[in-house]
This record gives sequence, C-alpha cells and structure tokens, in this order.
Amino acid sequence: MAGASQSLRLNDPLPLDGGGELVDASIAYETYGALNEDRSNVILLCHALTGDQYVASPHPVTGKPGWWERMVGPGKPIDTDRFHVICANVIGSCMGSTGPASEASDGKPYAMRFPVITIRDMVRGLVALLDELGIGQLHAVVGGSMGGMQALSLAANWPERAARVLVIASTSRHSAQNIAFHELGRQAVMADPRWNGGDYYEGEAPDSGLAVARMAAHITYLSEEALTEKFGRNLQDRDAKSFGFDADFQVESYLRYQGSGFTRRFDANSYLYITRAMDYFDLADEHGGKLADAFAGTDARFCLVSFDSDWLYPTSESRHVVRALNAAGAAVSFVELSAPHGHDSFLLDVPALDRVVEGFLT
Amino acid sequence: MAGASQSLRLNDPLPLDGGGELVDASIAYETYGALNEDRSNVILLCHALTGDQYVASPHPVTGKPGWWERMVGPGKPIDTDRFHVICANVIGSCMGSTGPASEASDGKPYAMRFPVITIRDMVRGLVALLDELGIGQLHAVVGGSMGGMQALSLAANWPERAARVLVIASTSRHSAQNIAFHELGRQAVMADPRWNGGDYYEGEAPDSGLAVARMAAHITYLSEEALTEKFGRNLQDRDAKSFGFDADFQVESYLRYQGSGFTRRFDANSYLYITRAMDYFDLADEHGGKLADAFAGTDARFCLVSFDSDWLYPTSESRHVVRALNAAGAAVSFVELSAPHGHDSFLLDVPALDRVVEGFLT
Repeated sequence: MAGASQSLRLNDPLPLDGGGELVDASIAYETYGALNEDRSNVILLCHALTGDQYVASPHPVTGKPGWWERMVGPGKPIDTDRFHVICANVIGSCMGSTGPASEASDGKPYAMRFPVITIRDMVRGLVALLDELGIGQLHAVVGGSMGGMQALSLAANWPERAARVLVIASTSRHSAQNIAFHELGRQAVMADPRWNGGDYYEGEAPDSGLAVARMAAHITYLSEEALTEKFGRNLQDRDAKSFGFDADFQVESYLRYQGSGFTRRFDANSYLYITRAMDYFDLADEHGGKLADAFAGTDARFCLVSFDSDWLYPTSESRHVVRALNAAGAAVSFVELSAPHGHDSFLLDVPALDRVVEGFLT
Repeated sequence: MAGASQSLRLNDPLPLDGGGELVDASIAYETYGALNEDRSNVILLCHALTGDQYVASPHPVTGKPGWWERMVGPGKPIDTDRFHVICANVIGSCMGSTGPASEASDGKPYAMRFPVITIRDMVRGLVALLDELGIGQLHAVVGGSMGGMQALSLAANWPERAARVLVIASTSRHSAQNIAFHELGRQAVMADPRWNGGDYYEGEAPDSGLAVARMAAHITYLSEEALTEKFGRNLQDRDAKSFGFDADFQVESYLRYQGSGFTRRFDANSYLYITRAMDYFDLADEHGGKLADAFAGTDARFCLVSFDSDWLYPTSESRHVVRALNAAGAAVSFVELSAPHGHDSFLLDVPALDRVVEGFLT
C-alpha cells in the first residue's frame, strides 16, 4: 500500500533529558488509513532501533517492502480501514527526522555535536508531533523492541495520551548483557578510522565498523535454535571446506550480507546515538527507582507480549513490567508466545501474534 | 610454582587436514611435576582459544599467574606431586609454537600464508611432541573449552594414547551461533585497516579490531546472570549518566579493559586461525557423520563436565557427546555443575569441579 509521507518542523524547541534542547527539529512520518472526524482512531506505531517510518510502504533507499506489511494494512490486524496509523522516524535516526547527519545551525552536519538523547526524548518528539497534528488521546500506542520502550515511556510520562498500550518483545530497562552488546557495536564503529570522531559526512563512511556492529546485533536477534535450523553447519555454495577465510558456512555468508546491506541505509552516528538511548533506558530509575510508580494512576489498558525464544529481551523482562503494572493497579494482559525465531519473531510470521494484536486493538 | 619452559622442533613435517604439511614446526611447552620412571604419570593439558602453556607459572608477557593455578600444583586436584603435567602451546598460536607470526622459510612471518589448520592438526602437533618425548599412553588428557575439543579429538583419532579423557565445558562441534560469534570477531579484525591482509608485523598491529573481537568473545564467556550480578546497570566511577559516549556503565569499562588488555599478549592472525579451526571442528563429520563411530572401540574412560549457566557450549552439547560415548560402549561419567559464571566457570572458583577433576584422575 502507499503511505502518505510527511515531515513537520516542530515550532518549539524540544527539551532533552540530558539538559539543553533540540531546536528546529523535524519529524518525518508516514500515515496509513483515514483520520476520523473526532480524531479518535489514531494508532501511533513506534519503530525499533534500525527501523523507520516505512511500516507498510516501500523503503525509499532499498525499495524493500515496509517492515510490518504483514501487520498493517486494510483488513490486517492493525486495520487501516478502521485506524489512522502514524509512524514517525525517531529523533536521532537518519530517515528524515533530525539526527546526527542533519544540518546544525551552522549548516554543517551535527555529527557528534548532536546531543545524547534518551528514549523519553524520542517520545517527547512524538508527542510534539501529535500536538502539532491536533491529536489528543491515541486509540493505542504500539511498538516492538525499542518501539515497546517508547510505548512504555509514553504510558509512564504522558499517561493521558494513550488508551491502549501494546508492548511486544521489549523491556523496561537495558540489562548488563544488552548494554554489552551495544557497547561492542559502538566500539566496532569507533574503531573504524573512517569514523573519524564522527566527521565522515564529506568522505567515506565507517561502513566496515558499522557492518561489524550490525553482525553482532543480528546474532542477538535470532535464537540459537533459529540459527541452527536456518543454517546449522551448512556450507555456502560449496561441497567442502575451503581451508581459507572465505564465508564457508551459510551463517557467515548471512552475517556478511546483513552487515554490508545495513550500511547502505543507515548512518553510523545514528547507530551510536540510538544504542546509547536504549542503554540509558531504565523506566524505574526515571521514576524514583520503583517501576510500579512509573504507572501510578494510569487508566490505559496494557498488553505485553513476549516470545519464548527471545534471549535479547526475554519473557522475564515482560513479566517484570507486568508485575509492576499489577502493583500499580493497571489493566494488563500478558502472553508469552511460542515462536522459534528469537527476538525477530515480532517481525516475522507468527499468526498467534496477529490474533493478539487484532484482539487487543478492537 | 615454576614450570619448566621448553621448546622442541619437530623432526618430521606435520601433515595437515587441509592438505600439505607444516615443516620445521616448533612446539613450546611447560611441564610441572616429575616424570616417573615408566613414564606412566603424564597428564596432557590442552589449552583454550586464547590460552597458552603457562598453566601454573606466570605469563611471560603479562606477569599474571598461570590460568589454572587453582587446579594444577602440589596437592591440588591435578597434583604435580603425583603427575607430570605437560601443556603445550597449540600450533597456530603465538606463545612459542609455530603460528602465523612465526618465520616461514623465507625468513619473513607466515602471516596469512600460514596454512588453515584444524583442531586435529593441533592435536597432531601434540602427539608428535609426545612421540619425541617418548611418552606412550597418557594417564589422562584434560581440557576445557577448545582444550576439551582437543581431548575429544585425541581420544577419537589416537584412541590408544590416553587412558582417561576429561572434557570440561566443551562440544564435539561448533554450532551456527558459535560460528557466528567467531565470524563476527574475524570480521572485526579484518575490518581494521592495520590488519592489512595480515601483513602488519613490521608496523602497527590491528589492535582496535582485535579488541572488538575480544569484547564479543567475552560476552559469550559470561552468563547473562553473571553480567547482571557483577555489573548490573552500575555506573563506573560516577554518580550520574554523562550523556556522552564514555564508558558510563561498569560493564562497558570492563569490556574495554578486556579488549585492550588482550591485544598486548595475542596475535591477531593467530586469533583468525584458531577461531577458524574451532569453527571447522565437527568430530562426527570427521568420522563418517556418526559421532559414536568416532569413539568405536575406545578403551579410555571419559568424564564430561558442563555448567548450567554456560550458553556458549551448553549442557546439551556435553549430553550429545555422552550419548555417543554410550552408544560406542565407552566408560563415561557426566556431571552438570551448577555455577553462576557461564562458560568461564571452568577457570573460576567452582569447588565441585575440583572434586570431579581430582576424583576422575585418581
């Protein structure tokens, strides 16, 4: 389907958790489905780390289908015949919203002069967009992975803005292991001499480092079982080991492909800033140390979904959120789905997820 | 304690699984404890990926204690009052045995001209060493992680050479996820321009890439629980987040320290070759596809040990080996130990492991 591509420059500076503010920020977004008269049919979709606003329309760089075509469209679980779906590129990213590759007031790219942002800052940008669009309460805010963090942050910090909060394969805080993998990725980018302290926009980008970072991330997105089932020890286009350093194994070939493909569409500095925001995410810490306090007095209905093979944000993290919501007296449903794909399950063919999403949004 | 440092140049060329042979190979090794008259008290210790022969004597580069001081010494589980312990640096490594940093016949370092080797090739080097030393049957061969792969390879390919085979936290084959992490490390090294196709011995080494590879490996050596218990989301030497890209979190600081420390003592090309050997390891495949056939007719006693928190070589991999040994009619005992540290447990303070090792070697 075709989405409506728009971009909006925020009138007011965006205050940031780190102090200071982001001036003249732009938010690029796609919409799908018609807005009804009383603007009560809006679903805000929040994208993941390397996601973007092209939920159900072709990616302008790669030409590939939108990342959630299977979920969003006419008659689909997020039904654009009923709902007006908005998905905005988060600030800090590189698909049209203001980020490190954007021009600062001196006409040059921010690069590492871009302020370090948080998940809440991203959501502040989304709320500012809703304000500008005159949208009050959302029918729902929906997100998987980092999108789920944004949904939780919106529910905690702007509790009146969403009637329903759907959080898939996500967490309320980054664990030490989560931080470790992100730090590994950042160090890979920064180890690439072409990164050059972030000033590479007029030369070659640190594609080698960014590809390594992406490879590391991809390992965490798939379960051990999924990797074994998908690749095992199968060789790539050969009958025997080459006794060399080519990609003998299919899994090596897959990772190299994922790494090099990613650099075509993503900015290395954005990768640094967004992973940093995720590592900083700790919703309890933002609310005095007790997660239940983050949701005190919320009237929203929550739905949490985890996947049994997800070792990046395992079911225990969703349960942790559910317990806090229970303690806060919130209406919450929770389901752990069985799916073999690991964290990536939220993007893949899991019919049970479709039913949960459709049911919750009705 | 002091080990006896020796190096031996093999008289015969070492045939290699990839075809060809390694000529004039040297094997550097340490011994601890006295050899008895009939040479029947020898324990061959096999080291792990980045390990070396300095089991129980200070590392000559770092000055740190040997890597298994707690296990090897007078009155310790591997008792040097009773046993003559030999640990040799594997070929392909960089602590004295022939590897990519060694001089080839033209007087220049092999670099990437070094042949791709396998675990069995490493063991071939160890067996050649034993031959030269006039040692027939070992009282035991012992190894953790890659050392365990060597122990299994020796038992499968030279079944008469070891009366006892002790395999700790290891596997009979590298899984897709194991290969993926190693490929990530290799790509990190090769992405460093200073790697220069492996020709860096006269200039700067690819320390940045190698440090990233080591960081990735370290994440796999610790369990998620161990990382959480050790570091959690604790900040490093500061009271609040810096909103920058310094190592705010202790886990980031730890990884950076592990990465940079490693480059002082290890050769990047050796890291490529040894990880490749591990990825190629598939003991069943070497023996017609059926793991039990690898152990047909063995008279050795086997002991397999796994750790419940090890996600690199989980208990299921040890069980897989135990089932094959059972099918081959071998004498085998197996224990899964509970320890919080993950894969690194075999190197750390796990008193139950001491008891298992001591009991099995008696």
